Amino acid sequence: MKGYGMISVGKHGWLEKERPVCGPLDAIIKPTIVAPCTSDTHTMHGGSGPKENLILGHEAVGTVVEVGVLVQKFKPGDFVVVPCVTPDWTALGVQGGKSVAHDTRLFGSFKFLGSKDGVFGEVFHVNQADANLAALTEGVSPEAALMTVDMMSTGFHGVEMAEIGFGDTVVVIGIGPVGLMAVAGAALRGAGRLIGIGTRPNCVKIAREYGATDVISYKDGDIVQQVLDLTGGGANKVIIAGGSQETFGQAVSMTKEMGTIANISFFDVGHTLSMPALAWGLGMASKDIRGGFCPGGALRIEKMMELIKYGRVDTTKLISHTFRGFEKIKDAFCLMDEKTPDLIKPVVYID
Amino acid sequence: MKGYGMISVGKHGWLEKERPVCGPLDAIIKPTIVAPCTSDTHTMHGGSGPKENLILGHEAVGTVVEVGVLVQKFKPGDFVVVPCVTPDWTALGVQGGKSVAHDTRLFGSFKFLGSKDGVFGEVFHVNQADANLAALTEGVSPEAALMTVDMMSTGFHGVEMAEIGFGDTVVVIGIGPVGLMAVAGAALRGAGRLIGIGTRPNCVKIAREYGATDVISYKDGDIVQQVLDLTGGGANKVIIAGGSQETFGQAVSMTKEMGTIANISFFDVGHTLSMPALAWGLGMASKDIRGGFCPGGALRIEKMMELIKYGRVDTTKLISHTFRGFEKIKDAFCLMDEKTPDLIKPVVYID
Amino acid sequence: MKGYGMISVGKHGWLEKERPVCGPLDAIIKPTIVAPCTSDTHTMHGGSGPKENLILGHEAVGTVVEVGVLVQKFKPGDFVVVPCVTPDWTALGVQGGKSVAHDTRLFGSFKFLGSKDGVFGEVFHVNQADANLAALTEGVSPEAALMTVDMMSTGFHGVEMAEIGFGDTVVVIGIGPVGLMAVAGAALRGAGRLIGIGTRPNCVKIAREYGATDVISYKDGDIVQQVLDLTGGGANKVIIAGGSQETFGQAVSMTKEMGTIANISFFDVGHTLSMPALAWGLGMASKDIRGGFCPGGALRIEKMMELIKYGRVDTTKLISHTFRGFEKIKDAFCLMDEKTPDLIKPVVYID
Amino acid sequence: MKGYGMISVGKHGWLEKERPVCGPLDAIIKPTIVAPCTSDTHTMHGGSGPKENLILGHEAVGTVVEVGVLVQKFKPGDFVVVPCVTPDWTALGVQGGKSVAHDTRLFGSFKFLGSKDGVFGEVFHVNQADANLAALTEGVSPEAALMTVDMMSTGFHGVEMAEIGFGDTVVVIGIGPVGLMAVAGAALRGAGRLIGIGTRPNCVKIAREYGATDVISYKDGDIVQQVLDLTGGGANKVIIAGGSQETFGQAVSMTKEMGTIANISFFDVGHTLSMPALAWGLGMASKDIRGGFCPGGALRIEKMMELIKYGRVDTTKLISHTFRGFEKIKDAFCLMDEKTPDLIKPVVYID
Repeated sequence: MKGYGMISVGKHGWLEKERPVCGPLDAIIKPTIVAPCTSDTHTMHGGSGPKENLILGHEAVGTVVEVGVLVQKFKPGDFVVVPCVTPDWTALGVQGGKSVAHDTRLFGSFKFLGSKDGVFGEVFHVNQADANLAALTEGVSPEAALMTVDMMSTGFHGVEMAEIGFGDTVVVIGIGPVGLMAVAGAALRGAGRLIGIGTRPNCVKIAREYGATDVISYKDGDIVQQVLDLTGGGANKVIIAGGSQETFGQAVSMTKEMGTIANISFFDVGHTLSMPALAWGLGMASKDIRGGFCPGGALRIEKMMELIKYGRVDTTKLISHTFRGFEKIKDAFCLMDEKTPDLIKPVVYID
Repeated sequence: MKGYGMISVGKHGWLEKERPVCGPLDAIIKPTIVAPCTSDTHTMHGGSGPKENLILGHEAVGTVVEVGVLVQKFKPGDFVVVPCVTPDWTALGVQGGKSVAHDTRLFGSFKFLGSKDGVFGEVFHVNQADANLAALTEGVSPEAALMTVDMMSTGFHGVEMAEIGFGDTVVVIGIGPVGLMAVAGAALRGAGRLIGIGTRPNCVKIAREYGATDVISYKDGDIVQQVLDLTGGGANKVIIAGGSQETFGQAVSMTKEMGTIANISFFDVGHTLSMPALAWGLGMASKDIRGGFCPGGALRIEKMMELIKYGRVDTTKLISHTFRGFEKIKDAFCLMDEKTPDLIKPVVYID
Repeated sequence: MKGYGMISVGKHGWLEKERPVCGPLDAIIKPTIVAPCTSDTHTMHGGSGPKENLILGHEAVGTVVEVGVLVQKFKPGDFVVVPCVTPDWTALGVQGGKSVAHDTRLFGSFKFLGSKDGVFGEVFHVNQADANLAALTEGVSPEAALMTVDMMSTGFHGVEMAEIGFGDTVVVIGIGPVGLMAVAGAALRGAGRLIGIGTRPNCVKIAREYGATDVISYKDGDIVQQVLDLTGGGANKVIIAGGSQETFGQAVSMTKEMGTIANISFFDVGHTLSMPALAWGLGMASKDIRGGFCPGGALRIEKMMELIKYGRVDTTKLISHTFRGFEKIKDAFCLMDEKTPDLIKPVVYID
Repeated sequence: MKGYGMISVGKHGWLEKERPVCGPLDAIIKPTIVAPCTSDTHTMHGGSGPKENLILGHEAVGTVVEVGVLVQKFKPGDFVVVPCVTPDWTALGVQGGKSVAHDTRLFGSFKFLGSKDGVFGEVFHVNQADANLAALTEGVSPEAALMTVDMMSTGFHGVEMAEIGFGDTVVVIGIGPVGLMAVAGAALRGAGRLIGIGTRPNCVKIAREYGATDVISYKDGDIVQQVLDLTGGGANKVIIAGGSQETFGQAVSMTKEMGTIANISFFDVGHTLSMPALAWGLGMASKDIRGGFCPGGALRIEKMMELIKYGRVDTTKLISHTFRGFEKIKDAFCLMDEKTPDLIKPVVYID
């Protein structure tokens, strides 16, 4: 079958691969709408190490075309929403209660790109369908649901880790699609003042619609100083949803004592993360530093869809570009790679 | 000085009392706006035991008229918001981290009504002014701030105890002013479906404005059955903000396994709270039952005012009746005692 | 094959049943050592409703005799420790993070007795072997490991729910084998004063060895009053590990404001659990009431065995009676049903 | 009056200072036993910036010689235990619930050395006596209590932040007196394997007595590699109780995904704390990094003394050297500054 992906590091194009095999607990899905993500282009450029002949893509909604003999809740023809993280729930890594992203090893639950082909194929494979597929909730559009599988689930995880209290001052560094979801989630979690950091006009506009009370730009000077000035001494909670390796230390520096820094941005293998001891209160300021990967599984996606259904958040604001047709995955992918100034999130309606 | 209160159990009227004395850490406040509460009328009817010659009232904003020699942050003339719970912060009961409502004993931090005259006097006393008074936040109206000192702080405490996760189905039993604040707080905390239980038309209307997706009524049948039917098996989180002693068991019965019940409603001394073991999963359903008193102190009120300032919630929707003049405290109190169908919250502008 | 169990409510004996079938993720285990539990006799007497022709038993260590085609970590001949709770990890009930005991419904993860035959057979079935079987940790004896699968895991869950802080005063009501493990767990969790409530001399002795600083008896008067007297006003944390329906209210009454009550004892279907509102601070004392079922899965058992391996706790103190031979399951079961005064926990070495 | 302290940075000796004045909430204490700490010598060497003419010392038990008019619980002659951190409880920094160490600003609650003279005087001052002084618990020796005020309270705070689960593998880096208390606390909190990192023979011996199952040394090679080898891939929880700025990155590197790093060691103003992004799972490994200052107040010290009273821990093992006489503070201080290989903790009995 055909799929779009990386031929080798730095080289992308159409691939011809074997149709995936459906194990007894699994499902084969035909994608209906997919969305490229910076993780896809990042992987293509070698960000996760040398890979080749790999179909990319990890955000999809689609139709079940085959299920394994042990699958109970789904059957061919069902429309499903596919979390980008699909743990092996029989691995011990999910039993500790802290995260389900690391089933057998670090990031082990991220199967697409991580250990098998992604969703930009004619069909794709999902492990443990009963645990990892969610039926589309009534009242939620497929494209709104598509935005939950990574963007919303990841952005909201930043909010969860930040442990926002009612009325807290919160900063979100980076207002690309994940950062915008973190803004929406922080507003929905009881933040008071909510400061987005970003520059692109359409992102700034949506950040404000999602509840940002202030948006500051890297272009207007040091972001740490801007936050310290605005807040009179620092924010309670800071979510890192973009930036460079310097962002780590900046986030710590703009957080008040007893605050929390929550990271949902991928740092690079070559990065060193550092901070002046003083910014961290010499190690004793009760400033927690946390960082986690998008949680997986069907229940979480169901919860996200509840928020959409009941009008708490409109995820479709993220969709800046739409394409139609399977072959347009290429254009969407190239657009994501190019990252034009007006891009937030492209989606491709397969048919 | 003059004050409105209880002469003895069941009897209320104007009292003549000594002007309170200001200790070195304390402040004397002249009220600007006050609001009667059911706790005031409940106390008058003997709900907290036999009391006499006690000025009532515990919700006020006002002007500082005197401060003790050790007070650093306030001076006569300052406009202040007064939490209804004002702990003695040097008592060990506040050091455990779980609640600050019980400074030296159960409810010890509730000084007004509890251990001294309330706020319905020409002036009133506040202990530990630096810790217990909040300056009015710029951009917040005095009457909006007044609604934080008990209604919002208590309602939001129900939400905090309920540990709402994103997308959870939440029920709020009772949509009087505290319940309405619990509804607003639950929506602001990331509830998905949000079911209010109440009947009075203006409360139902405001509940929906605050984010309730459904409102059901006691008049339409058993509320447990209604919730089970609506939710297909129970809510994730239930907040008790009103009702009778039966409400306790009902709340447990309408909560799913692994859910939480959070109580912010005063039960009576004579009540027995009971539930069928089966409703609590024979003791093993991981259904937590919690109940707490309005937390006190200035920081919390500052956080609440942040939410108002940044447009997250409009507390003035609670105000259904306004009065002008110190002597109108009597009318407002009588109205609260009578509880007319259109009453939510009366406020009295002193001058 | 042969197994010991309930013929019908109130009637127990040897049964002849089909050998269980091993699904692709499952394992068939031949028991090496088993232990009867009050849950077995309780089920036999109809405590979980009308059942018939059911092999009982849910505490076992044994040898793998067969594994399904998808099992990766175990093979025939492996010696394994079997948690009494073996969730279906692909069910959504395990994804919420609060408990894994309710996979598809309340107690759904308790398969033995709950939805299939127990471990008192020539062989027995375990679902999702990779997730639910633990290899015996080096340095841990099989009988010590056997005590983890329910007794220690349940007793320690009471401790976890009680959220004991360093130096807290803790009460454990009931010092049968689960209560004794709760005593050991509370000591190991940083309790200061630790009061056991029980009467049987050998249990009292072991409670003290496990860290109880005081043991009081029902025979010496009202246990609430005894605890209030000993502690000068109540304990910080109370764990219910035995008793009757009255125990619920007693536990609340002996807990101080801001404390926690944690239940790990099965109440009966016919029980009503009640407390005076006053004992619960009229609903506002910040006394949390929690109750949960033994958590399941292999990781937890591995953690419990770590504690044994490193000498933190000796679970074999619980073993008061030993039997040898498969056919002695009957004697052990009858002893458990009879509950002689010297009984704590009987074990049967199959061969 | 006389006191021992720093004349200027790097220079210590006897000082002649004014006797402190007792405010209405305060107490003046005559020390009975004191203990120098590395924080004292560190401050003397300029570690907290340029200071002069400052009496040092922050660990003391003593006798009340004067109390302010508002003090209710203490009177001259009472024997008291003095937490090294004595918050101003009317400051808002204590109201957030996360830490009480930062009352008005970072470390504001650390008054001794931080904002006034320490305890190495003929008498010393304690703010808010009712909140900050603990009576000696019956059954606890004065020197055992002295070890709680900083060593145990700080070491145990590391354990609290590490959120140890039953059976977790825990590493404590640095086994000086605070690290030894972290070892004891981790064992008392349910750690399974417990690895201390240190070299000095008497510390190694006591670490084992306190529950360390392994002790490794910097001298035997890279500590990260040693921990990875011992644990087969990393510890669950790592507590930093000593070391250099490199220790930060090492601690992260030796922690498994989903683990926690808890710092209770003071880094220097000039330090930069850094880690390879990969060691932190590229920012997404769910490895929390926390760091906090010794919590203050009387309740915590009372809880610590409960643990001593009930035999859970013997803090006197820390005391390696004893001196007698007020003038011997100098010798004890010099010994602490010299840090002889056999030193753990010196104490000075004043009379």
